[in-house]
Amino acid sequence: MDESKYAEKVLDTEKIFQGKIITVRVDSVELPNGNKSKREIVEHHGGVGMIAVTPEREVFMVSQYRIAAKSMMLEIPAGKLELGEDPLEAGIRELEEETGYKANKIVPLGVYYATPGYCEEKLSLYLATDLEFVGQHLDENEFLNVSKFSLDELYNMVMDNKINDCKTAIAILKAKAILG
Amino acid sequence: MDESKYAEKVLDTEKIFQGKIITVRVDSVELPNGNKSKREIVEHHGGVGMIAVTPEREVFMVSQYRIAAKSMMLEIPAGKLELGEDPLEAGIRELEEETGYKANKIVPLGVYYATPGYCEEKLSLYLATDLEFVGQHLDENEFLNVSKFSLDELYNMVMDNKINDCKTAIAILKAKAILG
Repeated sequence: MDESKYAEKVLDTEKIFQGKIITVRVDSVELPNGNKSKREIVEHHGGVGMIAVTPEREVFMVSQYRIAAKSMMLEIPAGKLELGEDPLEAGIRELEEETGYKANKIVPLGVYYATPGYCEEKLSLYLATDLEFVGQHLDENEFLNVSKFSLDELYNMVMDNKINDCKTAIAILKAKAILG
Repeated sequence: MDESKYAEKVLDTEKIFQGKIITVRVDSVELPNGNKSKREIVEHHGGVGMIAVTPEREVFMVSQYRIAAKSMMLEIPAGKLELGEDPLEAGIRELEEETGYKANKIVPLGVYYATPGYCEEKLSLYLATDLEFVGQHLDENEFLNVSKFSLDELYNMVMDNKINDCKTAIAILKAKAILG
């Protein structure tokens, strides 16, 4: 496929908002047919998610209040990256902070755009096994509940449409495919 | 679990940006321990994605330039909702527009938050089968390439970390689990 037939050319960019988590800009672009359009873009340093599975096929899950969903959500341990931070290092840190476990074996499960239409966030996912307890150490302003679920129960929850977080659904489905 | 132990209370909200696709606001919140914090939130009307599988187990895939990824991306047919629009109706419309096919059988594959930490977008996914050709009709400013892949090839691409879009990975993994 000839990418130049589809690519958009950025003519101008306007910064709208610089927050702590996201930056928002609007790009003026030229479409392949010469028409002009605007693209609203959310910049983000990226994220990481870890599905950590014990030898008993149990998975550490985090339940936390998500203001965007206005409810508690059940997710794999995850976190956002500092600018330029290595996703794997961040993932190991987040997993330890949230669950108290260090993973001695880690397999990459891919890098994903959550909403490629307007958001630059890339999310790296990993499967962590061979776990070793080193102690949980949550930030004082982090409120979450950590519990263990069987991988098979989580898989059934995904198939029954009861998991509502993209990264969590992908991680469970891939972990199940890999671990059987 | 007692949700009130984890919920955040919104004290104030400031609108930052009203775009065509997204709205950005910053909420001032009180955490469960009484501390104050800010939450940067992206509002979005929601999206829909359709994995359409032919009787020959072929899947319609869309390749398009995504400015957030600065490259072409391979995705299932998808689109954004108008405010209050029914996701299923929007999905049927998007599938027809992009591929020319109408689905006579549709199974819901769940509703997902793409990035629940800061974005309100909910994405509904559906598995569409029993397809009937009615004619493609792309918007004049929509530039995309539609092609068919076998479901097994796509499944292998997901497992080899070669699919980089969240909704597309979930839809392929679930379609493969359902259709075998």
